[in-house]
Amino acid sequence: MPDLVTGNAAIGQSGGPTAVINQSLAGIVESLQTGLGASGQVKRIIGLRHGVRGLLKPGEDGLVDLTAIGKAKLETIAGTPSAALSSTRDKPDEAYCQKILEGCRRNDIRYFFYIGGNDSADTCRIVSEKAAAAGYGLRCFHVPKTIDNDLLENDHTPGFPSAARYVTLAHMGDALDNASLGGIKINIVMGRNAGFLTAAASLARGQASDGAAPADRPAPHLIYLPEVPFSTDAFLADVDAVYAKLGRCQIAVSEGIRDETGSEIAPKLMGSGEVDAHGNVQLSGSGALGDGLADLVKKALTPKGGKAPRVRADTFGYLQRCWPYASPVDAEEARAVGRYAAALAGKGDTSASTILVRTSHAPYRVECRRADLAAVARRTRHMPAEFIAGSNDVSAAFHDYCSPLIGELPKIARL
Amino acid sequence: MPDLVTGNAAIGQSGGPTAVINQSLAGIVESLQTGLGASGQVKRIIGLRHGVRGLLKPGEDGLVDLTAIGKAKLETIAGTPSAALSSTRDKPDEAYCQKILEGCRRNDIRYFFYIGGNDSADTCRIVSEKAAAAGYGLRCFHVPKTIDNDLLENDHTPGFPSAARYVTLAHMGDALDNASLGGIKINIVMGRNAGFLTAAASLARGQASDGAAPADRPAPHLIYLPEVPFSTDAFLADVDAVYAKLGRCQIAVSEGIRDETGSEIAPKLMGSGEVDAHGNVQLSGSGALGDGLADLVKKALTPKGGKAPRVRADTFGYLQRCWPYASPVDAEEARAVGRYAAALAGKGDTSASTILVRTSHAPYRVECRRADLAAVARRTRHMPAEFIAGSNDVSAAFHDYCSPLIGELPKIARL
Repeated sequence: MPDLVTGNAAIGQSGGPTAVINQSLAGIVESLQTGLGASGQVKRIIGLRHGVRGLLKPGEDGLVDLTAIGKAKLETIAGTPSAALSSTRDKPDEAYCQKILEGCRRNDIRYFFYIGGNDSADTCRIVSEKAAAAGYGLRCFHVPKTIDNDLLENDHTPGFPSAARYVTLAHMGDALDNASLGGIKINIVMGRNAGFLTAAASLARGQASDGAAPADRPAPHLIYLPEVPFSTDAFLADVDAVYAKLGRCQIAVSEGIRDETGSEIAPKLMGSGEVDAHGNVQLSGSGALGDGLADLVKKALTPKGGKAPRVRADTFGYLQRCWPYASPVDAEEARAVGRYAAALAGKGDTSASTILVRTSHAPYRVECRRADLAAVARRTRHMPAEFIAGSNDVSAAFHDYCSPLIGELPKIARL
Repeated sequence: MPDLVTGNAAIGQSGGPTAVINQSLAGIVESLQTGLGASGQVKRIIGLRHGVRGLLKPGEDGLVDLTAIGKAKLETIAGTPSAALSSTRDKPDEAYCQKILEGCRRNDIRYFFYIGGNDSADTCRIVSEKAAAAGYGLRCFHVPKTIDNDLLENDHTPGFPSAARYVTLAHMGDALDNASLGGIKINIVMGRNAGFLTAAASLARGQASDGAAPADRPAPHLIYLPEVPFSTDAFLADVDAVYAKLGRCQIAVSEGIRDETGSEIAPKLMGSGEVDAHGNVQLSGSGALGDGLADLVKKALTPKGGKAPRVRADTFGYLQRCWPYASPVDAEEARAVGRYAAALAGKGDTSASTILVRTSHAPYRVECRRADLAAVARRTRHMPAEFIAGSNDVSAAFHDYCSPLIGELPKIARL
């Protein structure tokens, strides 16, 4: 018999939403309904409005009762992008976590599930430690979610494959547009610290291009990642070489590109530079980096007295994480990590993060496993060196890694 | 027996590509193969690279032989977004059209099909008149295409429904994202002169909202069209009212919004203001309008000494016209207008534009018909008054008009 506690279960969603974050919610709920709910340890299944914020509110104000939610409703919720319970950008410190613990006590919450990134894993870790120190039986489980794919211990993170699918499809369509009318096209992709999502633009090529010169690659011809120091001079030379040969050039750029000293490029090109609560300059929800790079290219590539090349920039923005059609692989895996976390609780685990481990590359297979919260909390994973090729491309290893995640691509041809 | 000429047929694609422009190409090709091709009047079916530019090149340099293209290849081409033959932004004047006519003579072209907007219809018209004046038997057919939906005579234009589907899906996903985290979100939609595409954002609501106050509408709460004079003060008051009540606000804005004097808003908010070959300021491929509006909102809605609201802007850009998944209705209709143009040629018509006419609203039915080129050429259609509701919304009539065009939408729900 597993060592279990009896009381209520709470589920929260945190950080930037994804296309499949509700699949994880549904996975937790359905597994609790048939598991700890059916066996009596979980009395109520409670959804938290705006993540841990929901626990800070008086009475039932921040809570949604999911105990008896029906299968059909749950399935519609699961297929809906963005946090159905609403999310929060709060990153709780020790004092905040103390309030979370008090909220758990007040609502007799004994099982706490938090779907989010490395900050959410850290919240789970702190709350779990505080509960243990206070002698309050609370089981804390982190369920992974982030389009940035930057969680340690995981082969990849639920949410990333759907965003990667969007970025791939966008580059496929946009490459055809660029081929139709020519010119230079810059696409800014989300991912401040990790280049995985920008790297996914390479899948639009339909094949790995490891080793080919930029003008000999299918579009996107150039890919710039935050992990590779960005030099404006090298960038302009790269673009010039492709454009001179092809009359066009498609470029994928991470919003988080940095120079050799580690300073972000975006603030240098941006007029304003709004700083968020964490001291970071706002990169998403603004077209400034793309427009700044486009201006640079126009100035550098316009011959003296000649005609400026056609240069356009699109900043993909929030659609990357909320497009209503998810990667089917992602939807399935996001559901699985939710179920697995509930199963860990059912086995008497006291605190853990669910992780996704790839057990076979061909055929593609993954398994859910457990990791200690501290192994996932706070730290950020970057693109490994073997996924990067030179200063402006990704490797065949990345192609092999990412291809199975994004689902089928449409068949295309030109004349 | 129809009055026919014998020689080659040429097909070109012009202007901004769409997701279904190759469906029209395929429709023309397959109908010529089994029609005038099989009966001997059409010897070769020739694709023009970069539209009429292909006719100006020596020898076969600008031509692609499509006479014997196979069904499977043609079907893949049809399903591919963006002009498979490549497109052109050239808007031929009289002298240019004279060169086109010479290109037709040089290549024994007797049937000329041009897939494009009102400028392409005008090119057809001028070339047709020049051929008649020169006693050269040339049949000219315009096949409609534009995401802006701004062609006269047509109920709607192939290319628009797919772009409208993208804009709808984008607002659906983005509204859920906005509901998850709150704040003010501005989305800039293509369409410099006609507001149809921006209006399509309203379909994300899943229902008509005619008459409801902005904060009582499902998102998008506010919609600004180029047909309705835009007042910055009214805009800020609108946003303030919704945000004060809901803590969030989703806004769809046409890139072509203008003030009461008809002057575009974008150039006023933009630092630079690149002017294109036609004297127009560049609106697409830049985030400047969205960023400018976001700055206005931030400044106006930040309480004295208080915290600025979260304001973000996304400019949807080129993905609106090249997303690889088209509206199924659009794909079918784009194919049909191509076939119909070839059928007109087979019946001995000498010059015409194919138009789409809605013959029934419920159930939705359309028919292809012919119009004189002059009826479609050059002029621009705007949103009719009955599609507009007040200063910041569309009507139930627009909802009924547009809903059948975009295909099925995913089922969504929140908690």
